[in-house]
Amino acid sequence: MKAKVIVTPKKAVLDPQGKTVQNALEHIGFKGVKDVRIGKYIEIELEGTDREAALRSIQEASHKILSNPVIEDYSVEICD
Amino acid sequence: MKAKVIVTPKKAVLDPQGKTVQNALEHIGFKGVKDVRIGKYIEIELEGTDREAALRSIQEASHKILSNPVIEDYSVEICD
Repeated sequence: MKAKVIVTPKKAVLDPQGKTVQNALEHIGFKGVKDVRIGKYIEIELEGTDREAALRSIQEASHKILSNPVIEDYSVEICD
Repeated sequence: MKAKVIVTPKKAVLDPQGKTVQNALEHIGFKGVKDVRIGKYIEIELEGTDREAALRSIQEASHKILSNPVIEDYSVEICD
């Protein structure tokens, strides 16, 4: 079983890394880029088959150590 | 229109950041974590409505500047 966690900066938080990528994209000729936000992608390989328990456990982990809930949002998805 | 790009280290490439997170998870009591891989998540807000063109353009950008194709894989998804 696999858990996919995406951690992104909250909308209200400045994302200088994203701004830099946006400028770089424009600089090399990519038009029409309105905004870029950069986050983290975390793939966790899990033992067991209980999806509900896995979801709860990974949500707790996301809140505790994978993200900083003050400035970041996270989403968790469990797949096979 | 929004493009979501996920950049992950290739399977054969060591991921020390992932290993550190795996150790941290075990350390604070999360059991059954077999592997952790950490990548980047890039959300790009685009002008226009041509999904095909957007996909081609973002795939090119992913190859050229968002990832290092020698050690990283990327996947692109276009959504509304």
